[in-house]
Amino acid sequence: METIRLGIAGLGRAFSLMLPTFLGDARVRLVAACDPREAARKQFEADFDAPTFDDIDALARGPDIDAIYIASPHQFHAAHTRIAAAHGKHVLVEKPMALSLAECDDMIDACRTANVHLIVGHCHSFDAPYLRTRELIASGAFGDVKMIHALNFTDYLYRPRRPEELKTEEGGGAVFSQAAHQVDIVRMLAGSRATRIRAAVGNWDAARPTEGAYTATLWFENGAFATLSYNGYAHFDSDEWIGWIGEMGQARSPDEYGVARRKLSQVASREEEARLKAAGTYGGNAYTSASQGADARSHQHFGPLIVSCERADLRPMPEAIVVYSDERRERIELDAPRVPRAEVIDELIGAVHGGVAPLHDGEWARGTLEICLAMLRSSAQACDVVIGKK
Amino acid sequence: METIRLGIAGLGRAFSLMLPTFLGDARVRLVAACDPREAARKQFEADFDAPTFDDIDALARGPDIDAIYIASPHQFHAAHTRIAAAHGKHVLVEKPMALSLAECDDMIDACRTANVHLIVGHCHSFDAPYLRTRELIASGAFGDVKMIHALNFTDYLYRPRRPEELKTEEGGGAVFSQAAHQVDIVRMLAGSRATRIRAAVGNWDAARPTEGAYTATLWFENGAFATLSYNGYAHFDSDEWIGWIGEMGQARSPDEYGVARRKLSQVASREEEARLKAAGTYGGNAYTSASQGADARSHQHFGPLIVSCERADLRPMPEAIVVYSDERRERIELDAPRVPRAEVIDELIGAVHGGVAPLHDGEWARGTLEICLAMLRSSAQACDVVIGKK
Ligand SMILES: NC(=O)c1ccc[n+]([C@@H]2O[C@H](COP(=O)([O-])OP(=O)(O)OC[C@H]3O[C@@H](n4cnc5c(N)ncnc54)[C@H](O)[C@@H]3O)[C@@H](O)[C@H]2O)c1
Ligand SMILES: NC(=O)c1ccc[n+]([C@@H]2O[C@H](COP(=O)([O-])OP(=O)(O)OC[C@H]3O[C@@H](n4cnc5c(N)ncnc54)[C@H](O)[C@@H]3O)[C@@H](O)[C@H]2O)c1
Repeated sequence: METIRLGIAGLGRAFSLMLPTFLGDARVRLVAACDPREAARKQFEADFDAPTFDDIDALARGPDIDAIYIASPHQFHAAHTRIAAAHGKHVLVEKPMALSLAECDDMIDACRTANVHLIVGHCHSFDAPYLRTRELIASGAFGDVKMIHALNFTDYLYRPRRPEELKTEEGGGAVFSQAAHQVDIVRMLAGSRATRIRAAVGNWDAARPTEGAYTATLWFENGAFATLSYNGYAHFDSDEWIGWIGEMGQARSPDEYGVARRKLSQVASREEEARLKAAGTYGGNAYTSASQGADARSHQHFGPLIVSCERADLRPMPEAIVVYSDERRERIELDAPRVPRAEVIDELIGAVHGGVAPLHDGEWARGTLEICLAMLRSSAQACDVVIGKK
Repeated sequence: METIRLGIAGLGRAFSLMLPTFLGDARVRLVAACDPREAARKQFEADFDAPTFDDIDALARGPDIDAIYIASPHQFHAAHTRIAAAHGKHVLVEKPMALSLAECDDMIDACRTANVHLIVGHCHSFDAPYLRTRELIASGAFGDVKMIHALNFTDYLYRPRRPEELKTEEGGGAVFSQAAHQVDIVRMLAGSRATRIRAAVGNWDAARPTEGAYTATLWFENGAFATLSYNGYAHFDSDEWIGWIGEMGQARSPDEYGVARRKLSQVASREEEARLKAAGTYGGNAYTSASQGADARSHQHFGPLIVSCERADLRPMPEAIVVYSDERRERIELDAPRVPRAEVIDELIGAVHGGVAPLHDGEWARGTLEICLAMLRSSAQACDVVIGKK
């Protein structure tokens, strides 16, 4: 069995969402970590009997680390990637890849120079139902992709946030954080280069002044077009259309109604909110260990999505792909995930040990960021933005 | 009780869908009709013991008619409205109002000159759940409308059609016939003037070369934006997200899968297809009388739709408006429709007898056609189209 020794940069929420994967996948060894938060470091040391550091420089110098999972806030992704690469470590960096295309170019360059792999994820485009749908499309059995409809209604904007997560100029808001998933999934399923986009963004809660919602049309070279809509101010929860299975593959109850807004209404300040976020994450006093997804019986997802091909609509769901074809409707059942997000480790190990070019490499993820940035620009300038033009 | 004596121009599918209303609503008397199809005329004479004619001129001359319901094919709406108005009859004309804005202007002008009312419908924006949602929004209780998401996945393009229904230049395709509903509903709920649109249309079945699908973003003066998506090539049926209640308010079974495509695959030619359409409609040998909607217990609808206001999402459903507000989710139950589409008669009688300005008047419906035409243009020219510019 090929294994990977992983160092972690950033022990926050993203890390806690990946932890069930790291714990469940025997190929992964967590060997070191860094985080400015002492509580998180202490917890990591206790849980993994492994060293921790307060910054990534010290972490990256460690000799027995194959790759670093960079799960620090967006604004550090570029610098942290550069440091990891400079020390010869492969990089698994969280979405969004970075805040600008210049940063992406720099990251790609740094990893190429250091001859290390650069993979961007977890992103929901790693979820098995989307990957399997992509294979079904590629089989040609259903004809060309013509139209994709993707939507997601969540309480995204009302979960506890760090201050910069509510400032667009620092990478805050739904376009940077959530379109990063949706655009990636849609691009992957379209199987063609995106050529232009027209978007409208919503920024309508003065108390949280960043984009909470968007809608966009994305065109592809092969003639397909896609609708991408996200409402992170939502009261309606689109998990209702996914059989009440949540983003993390967990069973949900319609009776959890309004929890995020209710909790947030108790919070007096931005600082208290940031503390609340930290408290609920790794090492925090309200953290419940590996709570998210560890016992999920279903795959993860990013909202209702329908791919319309010439001869069938395909609907990736957490437990099956529903294929609606000319003659009949059938469910292609998916095996329950052995380990959540194992696909991320598959891709990382495949690249590091098998020399298999990763799907979610730097160039790919740069393409997704380009579209997210174009979304903001299209809305601000009230016109189409052409993709792929310097 | 105020009544209305109605003459009918066009005894086809639209008429058969209105027939349960005309039969169920004691305010309506069907007093005459015209249609070139002899079978339909014979049936009407037998059913209503009333005279029929083979063209609208003869019908419109009848002295004991208050209003004419024009349910002839799109391309006749303008001419038929002019004739009805010239004879002093009020006009209820089917959607889409006409094929061009010039025709709309002409119709508005003719009715104004003749001092008769012009109402365009039935259109699904008459459906009680949308009208009630509009009232809820207008109450101000939920804040401003910010975003609307409307979608509809149907087998529209595979139902039997007349040849011109498959030719865009003659008013065929989903934009003329189906966007006419969706745009009207969305405009009404936005409660603000539409200012611009960006759309993509899909025309991907060479055997039926007209638009079968579209997606569009529509912006409003008040800052709200809406996503409108329609897929009439669909295999997935979005009635699944409406509790398996169909467009006509009827209970549906998920097991009806694929019926439209299956039937159509038996048809050898365009002529045979047109005959099949006629056979299934009023007077045809496969017509089952007032089958559609007569016993519907639920209101009609035009697909899943969510209106996101500042403090709540509203979801008009066939039996209730679901209000998802900050604190709680509640269902505002709607009385079952006494008579389907009674709202059309309410508006007609209100105008004719009560002098109440109709909501769906010529200016209003012209606005909807303008947006539909702009949708086609936006897609063809790959840019935004500004609404309201001459
Ligand atoms: N793929 C997913 O499902 C998913 C989910 C959540 C977050 N994310 C991504 O993960 C990243 C982190 O977001 P989060 O929600 O976990 O935030 P978070 O605040 O919960 O966690 C960030 C962690 O990084 C630490 N940190 C801050 N500065 C650091 C530095 N210089 N070096 C090392 N660690 C540092 C913080 O102390 C904190 O523990 C973001 O880019 C976000 O988009 C991805
Ligand atoms: N609101 C709705 O739910 C709804 C549903 C279906 C159709 N429509 C609208 O109704 C109109 C008719 O469509 P349809 O599907 O009923 O078509 P159809 O072919 O079923 O019916 C049209 C009828 O008009 C007759 N006709 C043709 N030329 C005529 C003329 N010159 N004078 C009088 N009658 C004439 C035809 O013989 C036929 O009986 C269209 O504009 C369509 O958009 C509305």
